[in-house]
Amino acid sequence: MTECLKRGNGYDRSRITKAPLLTESSRISAEQLQRFCVTILTRVGVGDADAQLTADALVTADAWGVFTHGTKLLAGYVRRLEAGGIRAAARPTIEVEGPSWAVVDGQHALGQVCGEFAMRVAIAKARTTGVAYVGVKQGNHFGALGYYPWLAAREGLIGISMGNDIPSVAAPGSRLAVTGTNPLAYAIPAAENDPILLDMATSTVAGGKVYTARQLGKPIPNDWLIGPDGSPTTDGQLYPEQASLAPAGGHKGYGIGLLIETLAGAVSGAAMMWQIGNWMWGDPQSPTGHGAAFLAIDAAAMNPDFRTRVDYVINEVHRAPTAAGVDRVLVPGEREWHNRLRALEEGIALPSDVRKPLADLESKFGLKL
Amino acid sequence: MTECLKRGNGYDRSRITKAPLLTESSRISAEQLQRFCVTILTRVGVGDADAQLTADALVTADAWGVFTHGTKLLAGYVRRLEAGGIRAAARPTIEVEGPSWAVVDGQHALGQVCGEFAMRVAIAKARTTGVAYVGVKQGNHFGALGYYPWLAAREGLIGISMGNDIPSVAAPGSRLAVTGTNPLAYAIPAAENDPILLDMATSTVAGGKVYTARQLGKPIPNDWLIGPDGSPTTDGQLYPEQASLAPAGGHKGYGIGLLIETLAGAVSGAAMMWQIGNWMWGDPQSPTGHGAAFLAIDAAAMNPDFRTRVDYVINEVHRAPTAAGVDRVLVPGEREWHNRLRALEEGIALPSDVRKPLADLESKFGLKL
Repeated sequence: MTECLKRGNGYDRSRITKAPLLTESSRISAEQLQRFCVTILTRVGVGDADAQLTADALVTADAWGVFTHGTKLLAGYVRRLEAGGIRAAARPTIEVEGPSWAVVDGQHALGQVCGEFAMRVAIAKARTTGVAYVGVKQGNHFGALGYYPWLAAREGLIGISMGNDIPSVAAPGSRLAVTGTNPLAYAIPAAENDPILLDMATSTVAGGKVYTARQLGKPIPNDWLIGPDGSPTTDGQLYPEQASLAPAGGHKGYGIGLLIETLAGAVSGAAMMWQIGNWMWGDPQSPTGHGAAFLAIDAAAMNPDFRTRVDYVINEVHRAPTAAGVDRVLVPGEREWHNRLRALEEGIALPSDVRKPLADLESKFGLKL
Repeated sequence: MTECLKRGNGYDRSRITKAPLLTESSRISAEQLQRFCVTILTRVGVGDADAQLTADALVTADAWGVFTHGTKLLAGYVRRLEAGGIRAAARPTIEVEGPSWAVVDGQHALGQVCGEFAMRVAIAKARTTGVAYVGVKQGNHFGALGYYPWLAAREGLIGISMGNDIPSVAAPGSRLAVTGTNPLAYAIPAAENDPILLDMATSTVAGGKVYTARQLGKPIPNDWLIGPDGSPTTDGQLYPEQASLAPAGGHKGYGIGLLIETLAGAVSGAAMMWQIGNWMWGDPQSPTGHGAAFLAIDAAAMNPDFRTRVDYVINEVHRAPTAAGVDRVLVPGEREWHNRLRALEEGIALPSDVRKPLADLESKFGLKL
């Protein structure tokens, strides 16, 4: 798991944030967490390879510090796997394809299984033609979308992923949700540095952050939510029934969200907008029908200096004069690679909102983390 | 020029905003404006076809109401064409290519000439393989980036364009500019509706809006600019020397800006970040070296229902409950298509900050608009 960080990254290890998220006693090794997830997934019918992959995606998100999209999700996946809304043994298939593209029918398999399959297809096609698009229909919740572009970046390609979701985000001028959080992620390989890695909702925050703030009793900033009258609200209890998330940057996040709805949903033939099932609160027996899109670009085949040029960009960012109290201007992903390095060496300090559903799974399956 | 609006657009013409931007006497027909631009461009050595194309791009932006990127730019282009920084007679060439990609050497031709050439290459390749990427190096200021994806959408393809620019935007934690406004534009063809069309800077606003606000004596909102200490400022006079633009949505706009720097600059081999010349204030004899990226996706070849599915998305948006005082939730571009329809029928009401540089050109070339 450490190939990227071992590939000479120029980081001063002493710069890794040392403030513990929780008491040290709560640190769990990535391997333990991986084994725990795999055991549970196989118990509910997922094959070993798919379970390993899904566990790796979840544990990687935790190791990055993206706890909203890590093992916290496992209990919800298990519920759907047991009920049938996620089909444990399903294999995604290529429904139709061309030289630089494919539409994958996810067959309602785990989102991670669909996503990995689709990104592998995109990588293979991009190796031949330079760039490839793969749309997915009949997918599921894809977890941390940043996981898939990283698969491409590990092979030296630019990876981009995006997904649609049930509406939870207001449009400029709307009272209620119009689009999903429709996240976008990318990974860009460099020569000397770790990949630039961004994984963002096109809303101000992902819905998971609202739930987490609520669970941890934290206040909701006033740019996160739009209330039932179309004005900002800080009442997190209203979400998602009566409040919607604000689009990031107003019409800009909204507009990018519609591009993602198009590439992940309209092209692939997936469910769109209110056609999509609510993976968390909806009937766990019913497939959600999520769509996604994966792009791979073999930039090094187009320009042999590509990866060195990405280093140039990163180094220019690092040279930027900083505001008071800021040590260094970072590129997206640096914090996550730092977190991951520490997590792999010292274990992952899971916050209480993640520990709780994992503890429930321990009881349910008679396992100990 | 009206094919899209004639293709059954479902708009109620009476809904077009009737509030004049200026007095009616200032309305100029698109044809007049086009002829004026073509005459001047050919006087400074641009061939007729390139002049027509460039004029069409500028006048289209004015007709859309995007006055910061319309004929207001002509005087600056003329200065560079005369000085040699933009090469009037240059022809972009394909430097290297593969089945689904190309890198175009813009040869320092007008940005519009580079952009149209590159998007045509992308469209042709996408027709064969499904999706194509074309990077441009040695480009110039590309004007309104939304013009190029529209070329793709008119042929039924999804078009995406992006460009890099000299740093003018702060990164989270920086005191000074780190990235350019690095704009992103797309056009998505529908069956019954006009294309969804977005053209956005990845900063809160494009730099042109700061100049326009200054020229018109309008106040600067406090989320537009980051002052020399790294905090927001409303002093527009500080820009661009001592203030930088704020990234849209904070780290999200910054992150998308870096993806654009990569696709438009790092892959293509264009100038990047501070290597780029300042097209407005820099030495007009020196090429700027701007980069750009163009993507075309033949979505209808992947899914025959694609365009109808885009209509579904648009119709869902239109059905959304609105906040008080909002008539209808719009998709990106609707306002621009409305503006254009009116502009083509009634002429374009150019604001004073656009009239002024055009008047200077009238004097300089002994022409009358």
